[in-house]
Amino acid sequence: MLMINIIQIGMGPLGIKMAQYISSRNGFETVAAVDLNPQLVGKPLQALSDELGTSVQIEANIENALASATSRPQVALLTTVSDMVRITPQIEAIVAAGIPVVSTCEELSFPWQEDAALAERLDKAAKQAGVGIVGTGVNPGFLMDALPSFLTSVCQNVETVKVQRFQDATSRRVPFQKKIGAGLTLDQFADKVADGSLRHVGLSQSVQFIADKLGWKLDKTEDIISPVIAEEAIEIPSMNIAKGQAAGVHQLGKGWVNGKVKILLEFQAAIGEAVSYDEVVVSGTPNVSSRIEGGVNGDIATCAITINTIRPILQAQPGLHTMGTIPSSSFWEA
Amino acid sequence: MLMINIIQIGMGPLGIKMAQYISSRNGFETVAAVDLNPQLVGKPLQALSDELGTSVQIEANIENALASATSRPQVALLTTVSDMVRITPQIEAIVAAGIPVVSTCEELSFPWQEDAALAERLDKAAKQAGVGIVGTGVNPGFLMDALPSFLTSVCQNVETVKVQRFQDATSRRVPFQKKIGAGLTLDQFADKVADGSLRHVGLSQSVQFIADKLGWKLDKTEDIISPVIAEEAIEIPSMNIAKGQAAGVHQLGKGWVNGKVKILLEFQAAIGEAVSYDEVVVSGTPNVSSRIEGGVNGDIATCAITINTIRPILQAQPGLHTMGTIPSSSFWEA
Repeated sequence: MLMINIIQIGMGPLGIKMAQYISSRNGFETVAAVDLNPQLVGKPLQALSDELGTSVQIEANIENALASATSRPQVALLTTVSDMVRITPQIEAIVAAGIPVVSTCEELSFPWQEDAALAERLDKAAKQAGVGIVGTGVNPGFLMDALPSFLTSVCQNVETVKVQRFQDATSRRVPFQKKIGAGLTLDQFADKVADGSLRHVGLSQSVQFIADKLGWKLDKTEDIISPVIAEEAIEIPSMNIAKGQAAGVHQLGKGWVNGKVKILLEFQAAIGEAVSYDEVVVSGTPNVSSRIEGGVNGDIATCAITINTIRPILQAQPGLHTMGTIPSSSFWEA
Repeated sequence: MLMINIIQIGMGPLGIKMAQYISSRNGFETVAAVDLNPQLVGKPLQALSDELGTSVQIEANIENALASATSRPQVALLTTVSDMVRITPQIEAIVAAGIPVVSTCEELSFPWQEDAALAERLDKAAKQAGVGIVGTGVNPGFLMDALPSFLTSVCQNVETVKVQRFQDATSRRVPFQKKIGAGLTLDQFADKVADGSLRHVGLSQSVQFIADKLGWKLDKTEDIISPVIAEEAIEIPSMNIAKGQAAGVHQLGKGWVNGKVKILLEFQAAIGEAVSYDEVVVSGTPNVSSRIEGGVNGDIATCAITINTIRPILQAQPGLHTMGTIPSSSFWEA
């Protein structure tokens, strides 16, 4: 059986889940792990989760992890930070070891607009090392960029691309409910928006991804955040939300081309949202609308698409990629 | 403005439409054209359609077309035949001239199962010439293979992939209505199925595409054709269909893995079909269902996706590809 060996870098909640998912899949194996946390270094993966084994020990850096790995890793899964400034040196260290990278870093999903110099640095390093780098995830990475772009394949002309991701957060994890501002007063909500701690990261990247893929030059992008306000008091096990407080977040990403909004991405996640769905509406020749009823479960999908992007990055040309420049991802098992 | 130069090979109805579509798009230009028909050779494209110009003359072969082209073509659009046996030498001649190929040949969309030796020959020729080759189209090429495979990207596990393409043919072109057997007696329908002239070509290829992409080994594939029987008499401008005659075709593609049907593709096109839609249902973790209400207009989409696959094949590694191994296609304009 074909087996792809993985080095997992970043053993936070997402990294642990990634290792759990990999252990339950055919064709992939975690052979090395890295985390900076001194309390984790030297421990086997099993210390983080009963589902994981004792053969892989967490190391403080890539060099040590490669030295102690039972087999050479063919690819790195990087689940550490969301921004280009901090992820760039981490990727450079991995690439210097000749290992391709799939990362959940949101800003990496389309870095050329806002971090052109860092993107250029990574592209050069990847080409020198002969490996690929890509940022992915369910959003950014798929639902609001790669999937809508792919759906335009059947169009002779495209006027606008609109995507809606609406999610009922009632039964989601409590950290997610807090992340979307549920239960905050409107002042608290505004404060968190102002300090940058309350927002879905990646909407601008998704707008830029689509524009780039379709050959559209953006005049400007907008990213507008507002609260979803509870019209009545809401009581759920994890919290009580008073009428008039925030039940969640609404976020609009706009891409302007020649003075018109040609790309419109709408993200809404709130407690008590009536319907969950992911919808793409391409206005063009022909019109194409595609709807995923119930929406895509982000908790599962983020890990899944990261693992499902391993084979495509191994098949890609060397360089810094997006989900739009590598062979298309899919579930795969050996 | 970036401009991609195209040689159009095959000036039948599909080739003419392709040239018309290209002439109305930014970023692409037809600079050479080939057809074997002696009545077309030596004529300008304008002789085929008022929308086309006089600068490109139809030539009998690639050598002459390249010699007379105003600019060197960067890619060939090949719209001639549906089968691997006849398309292979045509592609070899194009590739020998150092030109990558996008073709609407149905069997080329996934040739490895049924035409392994020819696929191998093309792959070798493409690698020697340093160019890519791909077969595409709306179906096979997108709706029943590339799109459902891509949708599994968000899945940690996949049990089954089911796709339905249901089309009301009432307002489609008459040749399409005849192609699906509308108006035939059931005996006539059975005869046409038996002689191979009545079938949607490519269902097996789509089954094989998905299986390959997901890493599934197929025990066997099935391709089952039956008539959609008119329950009442139907009168439309192009024909009268008596009760009990065929109103269209129903076709099932099945992919068996370890004794179970894991891939089920259902194609139905008939006069008077109640609803047109394209639906993908992935059963797995999570389940993902995506529905295109109204369906995708095949007449427009076939030309569009062929043109929209030009950039990806130019970016791909040399070799024989599928829509699953090149960078993802999308509408694009310069």
